[in-house]
Amino acid sequence: MDQNQLRALLEEVRGGAVDIDAALERLRHMPFEDLGFAKVDHHRALRHGMPEVIFGQGKTPDQISSIAGALLAQSPNVLVTRIDPLVAGRLVQEHADAEYFPASRALRVWRDRSLLGKGKVAVVCAGTSDLPVAEEAQVTAEVMGNEVDAIHDVGVAGIHRLLHHRERLAEARVIIVCAGMEGALPSVIGGLVMAPVIAVPTSVGYGASFYGLAALLGMLNSCASNVTVVNIDNGFGAGYAASLMNRL
Amino acid sequence: MDQNQLRALLEEVRGGAVDIDAALERLRHMPFEDLGFAKVDHHRALRHGMPEVIFGQGKTPDQISSIAGALLAQSPNVLVTRIDPLVAGRLVQEHADAEYFPASRALRVWRDRSLLGKGKVAVVCAGTSDLPVAEEAQVTAEVMGNEVDAIHDVGVAGIHRLLHHRERLAEARVIIVCAGMEGALPSVIGGLVMAPVIAVPTSVGYGASFYGLAALLGMLNSCASNVTVVNIDNGFGAGYAASLMNRL
Amino acid sequence: MDQNQLRALLEEVRGGAVDIDAALERLRHMPFEDLGFAKVDHHRALRHGMPEVIFGQGKTPDQISSIAGALLAQSPNVLVTRIDPLVAGRLVQEHADAEYFPASRALRVWRDRSLLGKGKVAVVCAGTSDLPVAEEAQVTAEVMGNEVDAIHDVGVAGIHRLLHHRERLAEARVIIVCAGMEGALPSVIGGLVMAPVIAVPTSVGYGASFYGLAALLGMLNSCASNVTVVNIDNGFGAGYAASLMNRL
Amino acid sequence: MDQNQLRALLEEVRGGAVDIDAALERLRHMPFEDLGFAKVDHHRALRHGMPEVIFGQGKTPDQISSIAGALLAQSPNVLVTRIDPLVAGRLVQEHADAEYFPASRALRVWRDRSLLGKGKVAVVCAGTSDLPVAEEAQVTAEVMGNEVDAIHDVGVAGIHRLLHHRERLAEARVIIVCAGMEGALPSVIGGLVMAPVIAVPTSVGYGASFYGLAALLGMLNSCASNVTVVNIDNGFGAGYAASLMNRL
Amino acid sequence: MDQNQLRALLEEVRGGAVDIDAALERLRHMPFEDLGFAKVDHHRALRHGMPEVIFGQGKTPDQISSIAGALLAQSPNVLVTRIDPLVAGRLVQEHADAEYFPASRALRVWRDRSLLGKGKVAVVCAGTSDLPVAEEAQVTAEVMGNEVDAIHDVGVAGIHRLLHHRERLAEARVIIVCAGMEGALPSVIGGLVMAPVIAVPTSVGYGASFYGLAALLGMLNSCASNVTVVNIDNGFGAGYAASLMNRL
Amino acid sequence: MDQNQLRALLEEVRGGAVDIDAALERLRHMPFEDLGFAKVDHHRALRHGMPEVIFGQGKTPDQISSIAGALLAQSPNVLVTRIDPLVAGRLVQEHADAEYFPASRALRVWRDRSLLGKGKVAVVCAGTSDLPVAEEAQVTAEVMGNEVDAIHDVGVAGIHRLLHHRERLAEARVIIVCAGMEGALPSVIGGLVMAPVIAVPTSVGYGASFYGLAALLGMLNSCASNVTVVNIDNGFGAGYAASLMNRL
Amino acid sequence: MDQNQLRALLEEVRGGAVDIDAALERLRHMPFEDLGFAKVDHHRALRHGMPEVIFGQGKTPDQISSIAGALLAQSPNVLVTRIDPLVAGRLVQEHADAEYFPASRALRVWRDRSLLGKGKVAVVCAGTSDLPVAEEAQVTAEVMGNEVDAIHDVGVAGIHRLLHHRERLAEARVIIVCAGMEGALPSVIGGLVMAPVIAVPTSVGYGASFYGLAALLGMLNSCASNVTVVNIDNGFGAGYAASLMNRL
Amino acid sequence: MDQNQLRALLEEVRGGAVDIDAALERLRHMPFEDLGFAKVDHHRALRHGMPEVIFGQGKTPDQISSIAGALLAQSPNVLVTRIDPLVAGRLVQEHADAEYFPASRALRVWRDRSLLGKGKVAVVCAGTSDLPVAEEAQVTAEVMGNEVDAIHDVGVAGIHRLLHHRERLAEARVIIVCAGMEGALPSVIGGLVMAPVIAVPTSVGYGASFYGLAALLGMLNSCASNVTVVNIDNGFGAGYAASLMNRL
Repeated sequence: MDQNQLRALLEEVRGGAVDIDAALERLRHMPFEDLGFAKVDHHRALRHGMPEVIFGQGKTPDQISSIAGALLAQSPNVLVTRIDPLVAGRLVQEHADAEYFPASRALRVWRDRSLLGKGKVAVVCAGTSDLPVAEEAQVTAEVMGNEVDAIHDVGVAGIHRLLHHRERLAEARVIIVCAGMEGALPSVIGGLVMAPVIAVPTSVGYGASFYGLAALLGMLNSCASNVTVVNIDNGFGAGYAASLMNRL
Repeated sequence: MDQNQLRALLEEVRGGAVDIDAALERLRHMPFEDLGFAKVDHHRALRHGMPEVIFGQGKTPDQISSIAGALLAQSPNVLVTRIDPLVAGRLVQEHADAEYFPASRALRVWRDRSLLGKGKVAVVCAGTSDLPVAEEAQVTAEVMGNEVDAIHDVGVAGIHRLLHHRERLAEARVIIVCAGMEGALPSVIGGLVMAPVIAVPTSVGYGASFYGLAALLGMLNSCASNVTVVNIDNGFGAGYAASLMNRL
Repeated sequence: MDQNQLRALLEEVRGGAVDIDAALERLRHMPFEDLGFAKVDHHRALRHGMPEVIFGQGKTPDQISSIAGALLAQSPNVLVTRIDPLVAGRLVQEHADAEYFPASRALRVWRDRSLLGKGKVAVVCAGTSDLPVAEEAQVTAEVMGNEVDAIHDVGVAGIHRLLHHRERLAEARVIIVCAGMEGALPSVIGGLVMAPVIAVPTSVGYGASFYGLAALLGMLNSCASNVTVVNIDNGFGAGYAASLMNRL
Repeated sequence: MDQNQLRALLEEVRGGAVDIDAALERLRHMPFEDLGFAKVDHHRALRHGMPEVIFGQGKTPDQISSIAGALLAQSPNVLVTRIDPLVAGRLVQEHADAEYFPASRALRVWRDRSLLGKGKVAVVCAGTSDLPVAEEAQVTAEVMGNEVDAIHDVGVAGIHRLLHHRERLAEARVIIVCAGMEGALPSVIGGLVMAPVIAVPTSVGYGASFYGLAALLGMLNSCASNVTVVNIDNGFGAGYAASLMNRL
Repeated sequence: MDQNQLRALLEEVRGGAVDIDAALERLRHMPFEDLGFAKVDHHRALRHGMPEVIFGQGKTPDQISSIAGALLAQSPNVLVTRIDPLVAGRLVQEHADAEYFPASRALRVWRDRSLLGKGKVAVVCAGTSDLPVAEEAQVTAEVMGNEVDAIHDVGVAGIHRLLHHRERLAEARVIIVCAGMEGALPSVIGGLVMAPVIAVPTSVGYGASFYGLAALLGMLNSCASNVTVVNIDNGFGAGYAASLMNRL
Repeated sequence: MDQNQLRALLEEVRGGAVDIDAALERLRHMPFEDLGFAKVDHHRALRHGMPEVIFGQGKTPDQISSIAGALLAQSPNVLVTRIDPLVAGRLVQEHADAEYFPASRALRVWRDRSLLGKGKVAVVCAGTSDLPVAEEAQVTAEVMGNEVDAIHDVGVAGIHRLLHHRERLAEARVIIVCAGMEGALPSVIGGLVMAPVIAVPTSVGYGASFYGLAALLGMLNSCASNVTVVNIDNGFGAGYAASLMNRL
Repeated sequence: MDQNQLRALLEEVRGGAVDIDAALERLRHMPFEDLGFAKVDHHRALRHGMPEVIFGQGKTPDQISSIAGALLAQSPNVLVTRIDPLVAGRLVQEHADAEYFPASRALRVWRDRSLLGKGKVAVVCAGTSDLPVAEEAQVTAEVMGNEVDAIHDVGVAGIHRLLHHRERLAEARVIIVCAGMEGALPSVIGGLVMAPVIAVPTSVGYGASFYGLAALLGMLNSCASNVTVVNIDNGFGAGYAASLMNRL
Repeated sequence: MDQNQLRALLEEVRGGAVDIDAALERLRHMPFEDLGFAKVDHHRALRHGMPEVIFGQGKTPDQISSIAGALLAQSPNVLVTRIDPLVAGRLVQEHADAEYFPASRALRVWRDRSLLGKGKVAVVCAGTSDLPVAEEAQVTAEVMGNEVDAIHDVGVAGIHRLLHHRERLAEARVIIVCAGMEGALPSVIGGLVMAPVIAVPTSVGYGASFYGLAALLGMLNSCASNVTVVNIDNGFGAGYAASLMNRL
């Protein structure tokens, strides 16, 4: 039952065609989600500037293509994550303004480039092997309206390279830190700044890294209290959460 | 070498008592951390209102008492986490304004109660057994200058109790969600709001909960992108990170 | 807003005191869960005969006592699981018709003993050490209105003891199988019957049983397709699910 | 020794050709399973309508083809699970009425379509990536004589899409819920209905999903008591168990 | 139905009081396990000399006492494993010939001391902390009729102490090796002898020994092919299996 | 120093060219392993009939070919395990009497077929997917001089198929049981016989089988005390250990 | 056969009482370990200054007391690790020069205090909760003849406290780093120095620290290549290995 | 700000062009890491002879080629680990003195072959499958200026082959031990020598070796106290750490 139906019902009540008890009874059987209101969407305004996102993994090329087409008809910005190069090639052909990022396998249509975040989001990564995850975080944060400051290749075993960038770190409003292996970088950065730090363990490493588990556990046990953690390799989630924080 | 020493050196340079090369040589051997400046403390202002925190676990009663005493001589607000009731009793005797929270085993001296967070921090928990962790989060967020809205006992298996509170959830600037067992609550809440959600897995449960591991994994795999996670039972960390976000 | 308020609103509509648009607007802001209807409770009838359940673990004696008192004022049957003997003693004093089961630490007030299940629920356990879990399942199934056939101590290493009971197994409408160690019993029983089998891994064992993990994994990998699994030591959950199946 | 042999023996006893002791001795050495009776097959009637099932994984094309041929000579309905597309192609050529389901890699010959389940089995999945597992469950439940109501793409982070379908959920006699990632959907659905819920963790996800382990643990720790669990990706097992329940 | 009943039936057949079809019918409904024969007990003779065994863990003192009493009335040898000292004290009072072994918490009544094993069983342990498990193995092997050669405290890091005993090792027909920590001893011994080696991982160690898991994995991956493994701390199982092998 | 050198030394002692102290001193510095005797090879006789074994995995084709060639020059029987089909093809060309077993990827040259085991070794497997592991066990036991009785496809969910073979099981002197999924078969067989049972978990299964871990844990926790366990998929080790037991 | 026997044999050879072949034969049957020489003890000299060590855990008070008494009769320095306070009290009474260290539960008799290490061993710990493990390392390294420089409470989240000590770190010849939680300290220190770093994960932490597993994995995945790792809480092993390195 | 700038500043101070306070202010804002001194590089001398190292895994061919080119312009020795054969081929073409080691996938340019280690580094491996890891260790240790003694194929199940080499082991100043499967070799070798032993678990094995986890746990729990451990398959790290120790 949509609002027209509800209006019709109320008019019947007013006109006497339906008595109160019958109206109550009809209302009683309306599922709330069809009422067209009272939904949990008061934050619609907040959604302004949010891109549409397609999680590409596990979807067929046709599925991705048709979803992307539909979304782009309505929304200026669309992000596809974890998309195969072949499918990406097809989308780039279909949508001239689509950018593909091979390292992170992200694809982005970024038409509305207004800045919605209030400050900078720093995206830091420990080694060059962590770059794909950092790129996914950066691509996400940018398409969600943030200025991103990318700081790469600053592992904890070379602490001076990291300290070299501490001004840039101090200027960021939110910091995303991507690290594999022992996953220690978020703790060190967390101790240098007061900003919220979102730690992204990466599956970089071998042996007892257990595909990112070591880094994940390290980050969860961080002795820096401003660190929160997302899933292994979840650059998208980090970029998304950082974007929300940067709008606060 | 402090600033006075540096000033003296520069004066010797100016006066010619020390030539340039010798001055360079002496500077070369000064450890930077003794220079008294150029340190990573530009965010000192940001630290305003931060309580001093003592992680009580693994410290002896005498250690806790003396650290607390020293900190309280300098700082209006002090938080001690994971403190035994007996030690808490001693501190309450030593500091008349200390409050002890037996469920979470947190102790707090909260003299400066200025509000530093810009909005409300909601602290939600799934079941009554999650209350100790939620309490630790609340105690932390409050002593860090936040208004806290505590919403208790809203598990996912009774989705209507949760939906009943969706206005309060929508009003929070940051949301902390504590849940054990399957740890599904942050995902559901994450889908209802646009605020950052900090998920705290609790060790509540038995059997295949593996002391919070099930909840932890659930939260890391949340299908809601605004969820970040802290360590199992880490109410303090969630309260701390939420406080930083609420100051943004 | 309850039904009275809604009725009043409709009456104002009928009387013209409120016009349609204003009524729509007021309805729009009513949260659905306060409407007093359209809730997800059409299965209220199905709930007939369900006992109230208190999960005792992690609750204080006062909490348990007061919750139990409140529930017993409204409901004929109440089940408390995982309750300490001392708290159980207090409840037995407070409620003369409370039974305590020390092995499973379950406490039950079972006033309404009507049979709601259509057949028998068999509760099978592999060894005497599995008895506490089996007892929790039995106590639960009984208080939910089922006739229970308890078959004990029929491990897979003595297959003839098990086969001896195959008639009783064949007569059960639903079968709960509790087993620790290798957890093989549900597979063997599942192969003997066509009824749904609910497997309950128990934490019985030592060493590489890993507190029930071995049994749990064994049951999840059962080669019998009629086996579903609940958490380690979750006799209550098995009894509950079996009761629902037995009402089908 | 079959019944004819036994009859012959008894006739010899009656005729005196064999004395009692010799008859006892001969009976003593008959393996019971060759007696042709006293077997554990009193539930043969219950087996009516059960399809023959071939677990395709790990079998060679020739093995699958010859087993399927033999079974189809005797049984109207045959289900092959986890079969490679090439082998499926061969079977479709060999049996004109075979249907292949590429997403789930299931193949079905469904000649006898009588309804044996008393109500509807709902098959719900959280995301499009869970569809293959849901399809396996649906294909199984259908070929076992059930009407299936498929409800797709209702994740917990969009609770309203789920609530939109609560009438359909409430009408199902048994509900299968397939979910990967955090595996929270069965808990939420379990809280909405009184029907038995069979939870199927899927290996959908990445990183700390650990190929379905996170979802599995979540489901085992469900706070909804009507949830039982099968192995990761075991759509077949869920469909099978649901079919048995729906015949109750 | 026992043999007498069957004999009676056959006599009725012979006498004509029961016709063939009725006899077949009555036989058809006899469960095989009540026939008194055709059971899986042809190895009854092999069981000669087997002690009765009570797994003490998880049983109440009364249960253990009454089971032990009943068994001792029929069987010369009884072994109780994992029994609390207090319960052991009670049994020692009840049965004058009971021996209690505090390290392993085993209790034994060993009246029939005939040797049933054809050679010696060596029980080797790596360190003094492994002694309780070795003792359980020795007590078991002895009460099952084996001569045991106990070789203690021969860890792999002192390879010469081990080599010193190689003659004794070479003389054993079966070798049980108990080791915690890295669990390397069975591999080294397995390389020195041609006898079957039964490896018992012990829970001795700390940290990354994970309560015997490290030793267990080490033993399962032994590069010596004559090594088979039992559960962590399962001295009883090793003694039992070794006894069977020593009778071969 | 070889025996010739030692003989020369002794002759110098006898001839007086070297005095006792000098001889002692020279002996003192001889490493024992070069003495040519006093080695740990008194069991050389026991090694009679042992095939040479090459673990093919991780070796290059050239390595395997040259090792096999060298061994076959000295030893009648050679077994190569886990060899690629291509390398196997090459060996079959090089050695006309080599047999290749594609399912288990074992290759065998079996020239000396004398029976060294005293009885039969039964090799039982639960399902057809376990056949490769069972084949490796059988090929190993045969080439080590044992008569093998292969019993296939007797899973615990069809207990009657298993019981059908109990005579054959009872006749075996040692039993190897290969099973994946829940790994329950060794427990059931262990309860039926008094022979030593060697359990081989296989990596057959999916999801929570975790590549054989579920079966491994199940077997380690077997409630049948005559069960010992080898590594996952280690058919060779089981065949080897069984062969040693069968020679006892 | 000891040296006297060997001397006697050689004398018989010289005297002609035994011929060469007979002497060879008799030598052939002497087990090497009884020869009294040719043992693997050429490094006896290297052992100079090594204390005798008793691993106290799992030993009875009487065992510890008698072993300690025997060792102290021969050796100036004895170290007992993981000893209960009560047993320590007894040893302190028995040996007036015994020191007990309650935090680490180590007990030491340190009579010969010569310095055997060539430089300093630094023992660094991340937090005060890591002190017991650091103390065990220090007590060990000292009693093995090393000068120890203890640097405490320098966690990675306060990188400046650590950098403050970099001169002391640079002066150490070997560095032991004890850290729990995320275990990141060895990586940072490893990047600052060229000395070998021995990382000791501690079981400090909670939740997803999993009793030191997180720190252990972090250290094994260290991006600093001069880091090697010992078992969780193994301060003794770190002190021992560092002592050997410091003697190089 | 480099030294020239600092010199200029000091000259301005001396010349009076800048007063003391302004100079202090300017110094205050210089990040220390740009000062060109006071860095943590006092150990630069120690770095003498260190090769440049490129971790090849996860880098593109172009990245590896350009980094290698740049490094070789400055440094005589360069090591690339874990490089694909194709990329290695390209580097061998680009740099005529590059050696490629296919087993370990290491590539080395080794121009400066001065010996910097004071003794020999032994690299021991248990089986031929461990050779790639041992090769990586050897290649690393050599290019870092060490004489390497490679001892291969000395598993613990053939203890005499190992003892045969004990003189060579005793002569090594540092020993690297690579072993998969049960990982017992470092314990045995650790017991034979007083040198530091660096244990490298390899991922060799199958089933319950869990890709090197079994060996890793075994080594961490070594009963030999001179054993420290690096990551699974980390031959490079072992070679690097051994090189540092050998320079001590």
